[in-house]
Formats: sequence, structure tokens, C-alpha cells
Amino acid sequence: MPYQVLTLNEAQNVTLTCYLYEKSPEYPNLDKRPAVLVLPGGGYAMCSDREAEPVALGFAAEGFHAFVLRYTLKSVKPWPAPLEDYENAMEYILAHAEEWGIDKERIAVAGFSAGGHLAACAACIAEHKPRAAIIAYGALTEKTVALCGKDIPLPVDIVDENTCPCFVFGTRTDNVAPIRNTLAFTGKLDECGISFESHVYSYGPHGFGTGTPAYNQPPITRRAARWLKDSAEWLGEVWGERTFEGYSEPKFGRRTTGDLDAYLSLSCTYPHLLKQKGAAEAVLQPVFARIDAVLKPRLTEGVLNVICTWTMHDLLPLLGYSEKELSDLDERLKVIKNAR
Amino acid sequence: MPYQVLTLNEAQNVTLTCYLYEKSPEYPNLDKRPAVLVLPGGGYAMCSDREAEPVALGFAAEGFHAFVLRYTLKSVKPWPAPLEDYENAMEYILAHAEEWGIDKERIAVAGFSAGGHLAACAACIAEHKPRAAIIAYGALTEKTVALCGKDIPLPVDIVDENTCPCFVFGTRTDNVAPIRNTLAFTGKLDECGISFESHVYSYGPHGFGTGTPAYNQPPITRRAARWLKDSAEWLGEVWGERTFEGYSEPKFGRRTTGDLDAYLSLSCTYPHLLKQKGAAEAVLQPVFARIDAVLKPRLTEGVLNVICTWTMHDLLPLLGYSEKELSDLDERLKVIKNAR
Amino acid sequence: MPYQVLTLNEAQNVTLTCYLYEKSPEYPNLDKRPAVLVLPGGGYAMCSDREAEPVALGFAAEGFHAFVLRYTLKSVKPWPAPLEDYENAMEYILAHAEEWGIDKERIAVAGFSAGGHLAACAACIAEHKPRAAIIAYGALTEKTVALCGKDIPLPVDIVDENTCPCFVFGTRTDNVAPIRNTLAFTGKLDECGISFESHVYSYGPHGFGTGTPAYNQPPITRRAARWLKDSAEWLGEVWGERTFEGYSEPKFGRRTTGDLDAYLSLSCTYPHLLKQKGAAEAVLQPVFARIDAVLKPRLTEGVLNVICTWTMHDLLPLLGYSEKELSDLDERLKVIKNAR
Amino acid sequence: MPYQVLTLNEAQNVTLTCYLYEKSPEYPNLDKRPAVLVLPGGGYAMCSDREAEPVALGFAAEGFHAFVLRYTLKSVKPWPAPLEDYENAMEYILAHAEEWGIDKERIAVAGFSAGGHLAACAACIAEHKPRAAIIAYGALTEKTVALCGKDIPLPVDIVDENTCPCFVFGTRTDNVAPIRNTLAFTGKLDECGISFESHVYSYGPHGFGTGTPAYNQPPITRRAARWLKDSAEWLGEVWGERTFEGYSEPKFGRRTTGDLDAYLSLSCTYPHLLKQKGAAEAVLQPVFARIDAVLKPRLTEGVLNVICTWTMHDLLPLLGYSEKELSDLDERLKVIKNAR
Repeated sequence: MPYQVLTLNEAQNVTLTCYLYEKSPEYPNLDKRPAVLVLPGGGYAMCSDREAEPVALGFAAEGFHAFVLRYTLKSVKPWPAPLEDYENAMEYILAHAEEWGIDKERIAVAGFSAGGHLAACAACIAEHKPRAAIIAYGALTEKTVALCGKDIPLPVDIVDENTCPCFVFGTRTDNVAPIRNTLAFTGKLDECGISFESHVYSYGPHGFGTGTPAYNQPPITRRAARWLKDSAEWLGEVWGERTFEGYSEPKFGRRTTGDLDAYLSLSCTYPHLLKQKGAAEAVLQPVFARIDAVLKPRLTEGVLNVICTWTMHDLLPLLGYSEKELSDLDERLKVIKNAR
Repeated sequence: MPYQVLTLNEAQNVTLTCYLYEKSPEYPNLDKRPAVLVLPGGGYAMCSDREAEPVALGFAAEGFHAFVLRYTLKSVKPWPAPLEDYENAMEYILAHAEEWGIDKERIAVAGFSAGGHLAACAACIAEHKPRAAIIAYGALTEKTVALCGKDIPLPVDIVDENTCPCFVFGTRTDNVAPIRNTLAFTGKLDECGISFESHVYSYGPHGFGTGTPAYNQPPITRRAARWLKDSAEWLGEVWGERTFEGYSEPKFGRRTTGDLDAYLSLSCTYPHLLKQKGAAEAVLQPVFARIDAVLKPRLTEGVLNVICTWTMHDLLPLLGYSEKELSDLDERLKVIKNAR
Repeated sequence: MPYQVLTLNEAQNVTLTCYLYEKSPEYPNLDKRPAVLVLPGGGYAMCSDREAEPVALGFAAEGFHAFVLRYTLKSVKPWPAPLEDYENAMEYILAHAEEWGIDKERIAVAGFSAGGHLAACAACIAEHKPRAAIIAYGALTEKTVALCGKDIPLPVDIVDENTCPCFVFGTRTDNVAPIRNTLAFTGKLDECGISFESHVYSYGPHGFGTGTPAYNQPPITRRAARWLKDSAEWLGEVWGERTFEGYSEPKFGRRTTGDLDAYLSLSCTYPHLLKQKGAAEAVLQPVFARIDAVLKPRLTEGVLNVICTWTMHDLLPLLGYSEKELSDLDERLKVIKNAR
Repeated sequence: MPYQVLTLNEAQNVTLTCYLYEKSPEYPNLDKRPAVLVLPGGGYAMCSDREAEPVALGFAAEGFHAFVLRYTLKSVKPWPAPLEDYENAMEYILAHAEEWGIDKERIAVAGFSAGGHLAACAACIAEHKPRAAIIAYGALTEKTVALCGKDIPLPVDIVDENTCPCFVFGTRTDNVAPIRNTLAFTGKLDECGISFESHVYSYGPHGFGTGTPAYNQPPITRRAARWLKDSAEWLGEVWGERTFEGYSEPKFGRRTTGDLDAYLSLSCTYPHLLKQKGAAEAVLQPVFARIDAVLKPRLTEGVLNVICTWTMHDLLPLLGYSEKELSDLDERLKVIKNAR
């Protein structure tokens, strides 16, 4: 583990602590590992130790390279200094990806409280976006973000269709970053069609970090301590799981449907495709006809209302399309620009 | 296990299947067990077997008496027939609580899809309310509820401060009851100050029931199969856990604060108490003075903004109040009516 | 759940309690389920309730049909009465397998303390052997078996190469059935080449049943409560796991090697095959020659000592045999009788 | 994490890699953490990377300081060189315990295969004994130890009443260090009254390290990957668990009874105390009389046979002794030398 503390900005006391796995001929296919960049919390007034090393080591134990970014505090320089620190850290990591054995396409952030605000901003508007974001009891809505500083972005307002997949959690009884932060943010992810997972645990204090008893004075539900292992498992779903031979297939894409992609595909929903003109119409006409002729007469209005919101991937198997027909159709759609 | 299938309404084909533990002198303190009433889904057009017996046996294994209610289908009689069936089932259970060894204060519902709609209605507006509700990929918002029938209540519109604690979950990729059902409902629970826990799992089909591979054809995240054990553990937090000697203390109340209770207490928030007049003022005056004199000068505006939303239970220890002083104060408040 | 209590022998007060899943068109491939027959403990002087219904419901929740046999007590009639009861119960279950949806090849026993003695006897010497046995803090060695009665078989003495796979566990601090019972029995399973899994948990009382806090007064390690889920998972390894489409492949056979099978195969170990004469020699001669020529010169004595105990399945891939060559070789061996 | 690689013996290429937690004012009671010294395997011919850093980081994630000792290989210098390296490593760690924040009374070893042999030797005969040993698929009996070298101690022969508590595990199908290694060693621990926990997992290859899929090519049961978290939890039972306020009480002692302690106590068994003469007799006479008068007439021979092997702590509460009487009696015994 070539551990090191790098100074990214001496004047602003910005450091990047690196917890890197040694490469080994014993596991050649793991030479490029995924990585997690940890962003501790503390209202941008401090960087909490409890949300730094213990978290990094938690992800290290799950097989990730881990980093902790101690960013510029607001007493030193206001926003967007922390986001600039994030960009610098990502640039540094990407520049050393080969040397350190990091898979550039599999770098996530994990941010806590104010660090969760920073993680959400990185997920939504950074130049070097992470490929997934883990957001713990984040400051994501107006009143809580106001505690972190003035004139800084509201995460709930900047989520869009290009936001990366997110794993978002908090406790119901958090009295510093009330759970509506998490609820409002997941609502926006859903509206924008971004893949996510979220957990609201029944009770526990703000700032519980890894959730292990050793670091937590007040009572907290046992389930809260599961987020780290769960989020690591979720990263395996987003990116494919590491196996001895390499990565398995991802379990889902960044978005749930293709309605916002650049080109059409069977991942688009039926109502979205109905609105397409030109080349798309020609390809899809026989499909629509078959839906009208075969499916609509057979189904009740209620069921039709449901399945008519589905992607073609979900819908067409009901019509008896074969695997081959489906993949042919998909090929033909994938060269047609999506008129959003 | 005195298993039996009771016919509650022969004309409407309503049955209550009972999975009851035998009493035993070997565990005398378990003679009164908590119970879960399972409400299967199926769009009110059927009652799914996969959401019936396997779920009931899952809760039985966790030490609960379990029931499955097969309610009136919409082809037989429209809403509110299923809610009436629920009331009848609860009346029957409560009437036999002594005989069957059921703790009347610890009966929960667990509903799936349309049954989740029914569970949510029970949690919000039933005469015989459950003491907790588990709601699985429920039909809770307008478009999805419309699939279940016409002129039936919208759960998101009927949540209020008297709703029972809820454990709510679904998968992000549900294309029958989209996850916004769950998100909107938890948002309402939060607004009304109701205790809850919620989980949005990354991927999996609608109607996954217990989530075990044996019952589920399409891919589904491993984490989804944890809801049953998790919700049973959560019931232990809501009601106290069963131990050999009896129940432990609950971990939290139905609501997070006392702002909506009939009488005042230290569970009320600071801003709520600030608005109280008369007797309350006299009791609280010295407390407020101490907050002004001791706390306000010492804390930054940001921190003040946070802690000034807290309950007095969270806030006063910062001022050095002793346990004794706190309980005296609580006693004096508890005889004063809450002016909501 | 067609629950019923069957009287197998009225004079001796022997009953078989059946916890049976309903069949359902919703899970057609589960119409034949595996089953577990629970044998409670109590020194053959009683049948403990804590080791009966809660255990049966635990296995039911894992998808098994479950049975509890309340066998003849020693005050009524001595050994082998309980084993005769077991045989009768198995005959009854097998006779109703079709009707109840039970897979005849996938019936296990799960016995506790004296019931563990009975389970071990069933596993070793019963006419209707179970296909797997779960043995909890069993009475398996001389002194502890003596507490259960006189002139009854010692499980450690009757294990042989035909014993079924076993899952054996207990706590280190058991002062009724000391852990040497479990250790000695697993030692015998190992000597006889029988597949097994075993767990000795750090601390906990005798008779902890499911290990859940509700039933257990004295302190006990959390890990002890995992045996039920673990043993259910293990049964899935022994028999194949139930999936929506049917059973997956078993993970291992009843025995670790084929040295005791009726016919030869690549599952036999190298030293065992070296001793075979006749037809086997002809088939194996070129293989042995290749081992001598290729493998032996390349490996150190220490490594040779290890791999020369291996099965041919483990050993031959080191020589570069292809899948095809291996399966051909296996075919030719499988018609040759094993000279044990 | 002041990570460093220390060279303990340059000529023999012995290194100690240190994975140390930073101290933090945020968790003052964790300034002294427990530690685990990892001993990789490789037949004393190499030190496997898969049993080094991934294991160390696994324990780090559980809150332990971790170390990896890369000891002298047999090609460089034969046994007892590795044990000498161990002693040097422990001396170094103990000398820096204050500086590094290590609790001297809570240092464990975790050894794999040949490293498991070394861990067992450390547990039994080292000068600087660990306070607990975790032994993974260890070389512990004659044939397997022979693979590691000549003239080296057989762990099964050196276990005695001063061996430290052990957590021992392996897989049933290990064809390099057959499971009888683990079975024989746990049998000896039991004979010598040493506290232990053991797990034999159903199937998996030798050398599976952390058991995570990323490092393991061949099939292996899921349960095998639980050993690390389980052994960390077990260390919390042996030493007391770390909480925010400090350590909780241990759950059990090094030995199960006090029969081998220097002084008598109620932890001694009844038959052991019966054999004591002199001062002990005077103290115990009335106790024995009460057992004879009250207990013996009331109990059947079978039950008597059991409880007459118990410690007085287990036995006397049956006679109605109060807490106070028990602690008085314990006090009086604790000044009397044990005649072993």
C-alpha cells in the first residue's frame, strides 16, 4: 500500500491522502482497481476525521483504492474553492491512473454532510465527473446548504439527465441535515431518470460516518452501519463486479430509459418513440401497428396505462418478438438521432 | 400452530388465514406475541399467492403471529370493500387477541402493490389502525392508484399527524408502480412528522414479494431480499424488542417531535415552544433566558440556525441541564395543553 | 399451508406435525419442495417446544416444507422406539410426497441434543435415510449419550461411508453436551470421507434452539443464531438451490472423493487408482506415465506429497488434459468396478 | 495512517509492514487500539500477497491496527527463523505500542497455511505470546507440517493450558492442508480447556485468503468469506468490544474453567474442588454438604452426571445461593492455591 499524503494546494491547506493497493502477480486481473474519493464533512468549517480514514479503510477492505480529499475550508477561501480542489484531485488521480493501477472509468466519490454537498455538486456539474456518487446525510436543500456557506449551488437544483448514478442515505432523526435533504434529492434523481439507490434509516444522529459503535456516542439503528458494504455492492452493480477474470456485466445503466440518450434504441419508452418523426417512424410503424392490433384489444385499460409507459425492451417481448428481431430493431434505431 | 382459514364474508369470498404460534410453558413471556396482517397485491383484481403465504411464514420465522387477508376483489364489489374487509379482520383479531396470545398494541399490516395501497389507507384512515405499516412497492400516487380502481383514496393525500409509523420500500426500476409512489409517500410522512424507514433498491421487478430467487424470474438486486428481516427488526425498534424477559424499550416514538401532541413536553421543538402562551411561558421563561444568555453568544449563526430547530431534549443538554432538572421541567410541561 | 397434527402412534403419544406450503400456479416449478423433519431434544425424557415449532417455521421461511416429530419418550418405551418413530414418519412422508409436493430426494433431518442423537442415528443406520442431517449440540459420544438412555447406539461408532452429508454445530461452553461430542463426530465424518460443514460458536448455553434472544435467557454469541439460515444455504449446496426454473447443480457430492464408490471415476484419488488392477490398469497406464514423465521431475518432493493425494479431477488439469480428454477418460473409468 | 515498511532483518529479507490508524481528538477513547499481526502463507517457501495486504486492510476496516510480517523463507534459513522473526516483530510492536497507540494486551496473530503453523506456534510456545490467534487452513498436523519443513514443531503436540484463545477455520475440501489439521487442533484446544471458535466451511480451495470472489478462481462457498468479520467480532468477545466510551467486558476467559488457574475460584469445576485438601476443604465443606443434602436427592442420576461436571458458578445458583453469597465464597477461594 503505497500510502502517501499529497499537498494539492499548500496555501489553502488542501491534501489528498492516498490509500493504494500494491499490485501483485498473484492477482493480475486486479491490476486496475476501481477507486473511491472520500469527501469528509464538517460544514466546510472543518474536515471530520471520523468521515475520513475509517471510511477510506472501509472501501479499501472492499477492494477499492481509496483517497481522502481535505479541501479548502470556508474560513480560508469561499466556494467554489472546494469544488476546484475536487477537480484538481481528480486531475491528479486521472494523471496517475496508469501508475497507480486505477480504472479511470470506475472512480466514485463518497461525501458526508457538507462533503455530501460537494459530492452532489461533483456528480452534477463537475468537469471531471465521478462515475458514481455516494452521498451521506448530505446538505442538499436550501436551509441546510445555507449552513455551509453563501452563494453555493443547491444540489436539488442542479440535478439533470447527465448526473451520475447516486447512492443516497441518511437517518430519519437527523436534526442537522433533516432527511428532507435526502428525500428531495432522490426525487430529483427520479425525475431526471438517473439510476439511484436510497436508504432512510429509522434513527441515528447526524455525522455517524461508518456507523460502527466505536465512533458513535448516541443511539443509532444497527442497519445504518450497513451503508458502506451496501454501497460497495451497488458500485459493483453500476460498474460490473470484480471477479478473478475481470469485471462482470453492469446490472443497469446510468439512466433507466433511453429517452434522453443521443440516439434512439429499444431502451426508449413507447410514448417517447410515438413522438419521433422521420426515419424513426418508418422503422417503428410496423411495431406500433402490432401493438395496436395484438396488444391493445387483449388488455384492460388499466394494464394498458401501465405498459404504455414501458421501454420497448420491456414491452415487445409481450408481443412475441424473438431475441433476433429485437436486436435487429435495436440496431436500426441506434443510428437514428433522438429528437428530445 | 393452530392454522386456520376463516371465512369473513362468504358472498365476497373474503378469508383470513391465520398462522398462529402455539403457546408454551417453555417461553412464558412470549404468550402475547406481536402480529403482522399481510395484504397481498394484484391490482385489486386478484390476491397474489407469492405475496401471501411466503410473506406470512417469513414473519412467523421472526416470531410474529401472521395473518393473510384475501379481501374483496373489484370485480365483486368496489372500494371501500377491501378497507371494510380490513376493519372486519382487525375486529376479529382483536376479539380473539386474548385467546390467540396476541398483543393488541403490536399489530402491523404489511401490504404489497394494491395491498400496499390498502395498508397505507389502513395506516391513515382506518378505524382500527395498525400500530405500524409495511408498504411494499405500493400504489400510493395518482396514476398508479388509478390502475387499482376509481374513487379510491390517494394515500399521499391522506397522510396526517395521526398516521402510524411506516416502513416503505420498492425498486428503482419498478415499471408498474414507479418509485415516485414511494418517494412521494415518504415525503408526506416526513412533512407530517411520522416516524418511518424507507429503502429504494437499485433494480428489480414489480411484485418481487419476499425477493428470494425461488419466486423471482427477472434479475433483482440481492439487497431487495433483506426487507423482511429489516422490517421485523424495525418493528422491534418501534415497539420494543422481544427478549426472554419481555419487551425492551422502544427506540423512538410515532412522531419525531412532540409539536403535535396534546400536551407539551421537552420533545417539543424550541421554535414551537416559543410560540406558546400562558402557563407555558411561565415555565419556559427561565429556559429561554438561559438560551439567550449562554448559548446564543457562543455559537455562530449557522449553528444557531440548526439547533434552534431542535427539540428541547436535544438542545438543553448543551446548556448543562442535569437529568434531574430536565425531568422536572418535562413534568411541569406535560400538564400544559399544546396550543397547536 | 395445510397444517395438521398426525398421530403416528397413539399408545406411545407419537405425533407428526406438518407445516406444508400450499401449491400455487404462480410458482409452478416449486410444486415439489425440499423438506426438513425436525427432531426436538430433551434427553428422550421430553420434546422441547423451543426446538420444535420455532425451528419448523424457520425452515418454512426458507422455502422448505417442515415437519416436527414428537417421538416416544424413554419413560414410555426405550430405544429403539424413537428410531422406529423416525422410520414411520419418513414412510408416511414418502407415501404422501406426491400429494404434499415433496421432493423425495431432498428430505433432511434437523435434530437437537437427544434429537441430534436421533438425527445422527438416522443419518448413519436408518432404513429410510435422510439425504442430509443437521445436528445441533448433539449427544454423540459416550458420556453424553449415556444421559439419554442405556443400550443405544453411539453415533461416533456408526458413522461410515454411507452416512449422509451432515451440518454439525454447538457452542464451546455447552456444559450439558460438551463440544467434544461435535468434534469427535466431525472427526469421524472426515475419516469416512463424508461431506460436512461444522461450526463451534464461542459461547452459549446448551439447548439454544434457533438462538434468537426471545427464547434464550443466558448470554450467547450473536453468531450462534446464524446456523438456521446457514444450514438452509448448505442444503442448497448439497442438493442444488431452488431457482424460479428449478434446481441448480449441487456444489459437491455426498463424499469428497470417489474412492468408496461402486465404480471408478476421475473423482478417485491418484493413490487409490494406483492400487487398481486389470481393466483399470490398461486405461490408466498412459495417465500414470504422463504423471511420472511430466509432473514428477518438475515438482519438489513437498508439493508432490500433496498433489499425489489428490483426485484425478484436481490433478490432471495440471498436465494439460483438455475437458474433452478428461470426460472421455471419466467415461471409460465409470464402467470399471472399484476394487476397494 | 502512518503506513511504513520496516526492515527487521535485512540479510534474511524480513519486513514488517505497518497499517496504523491516525489518532484523532474526535475519538479520544480509541487512542489505544487493538492490533492484528498477519502471517501470510506459502509453505515457508514464499509469502502470499493474497494473504497479506487484503487481510491487513480487512482488519483495518474493523478498527484494528494491522501488520504484515514477511518472515524468513526456508530457502534462506530454516526453522526456527520464522518464529524468531515473529518474536522480533512483537518486540518491535510492543516497544512502539505507546507511540503507535496500540493496546499491548490486545494483539492477535492471524496466520494462513504455513503462516497458520507459525501463528499456532506463537500461540503455544512463543515468548511474546499473542493474546489471541486466528488460524486459517493451517498446517497443524504431521503430514501437512512436513510439507513446510523438517524439524519444526507440530502444533497439535504443543497446545497446552497456556495456549491463547484461538479462532480456527478451513474448508472441508482443502486438498493441500486437509481439514483434519483443523479438527485435530481444535480437539487439542478442547482437551486443554482453551477458549476457541471453529468453522469448517463446506467447500473451497486451499489458500482462499479473504474469500472474496475477486481473489479466488475456483468455486468456494459464500460462507467462507465471513471468517474475517466473524473473527473480528470474536476478538471483541475475547477482549471486550470497543465502544465510544472504551472497552466493554469480555464475554469469556482464556479457559472455560478455573481448574488450571494458580488460585481457586468458583470458576473451578465441582469434581476439581472435591479433590482439594486443606484450606479449601474448610471453605467448601458447607457447600458440598448442601449439594449432597439438597441437590442430590432431587435429581435423577443422568442429570447429576451432567451437573456434577459443572463449574461452581453454573452449579450453585441451582441451590439458591445469592449473588452476595457467591461473591463472598469466590473471595475466600481466590486466596487459596490451586493444587493441580
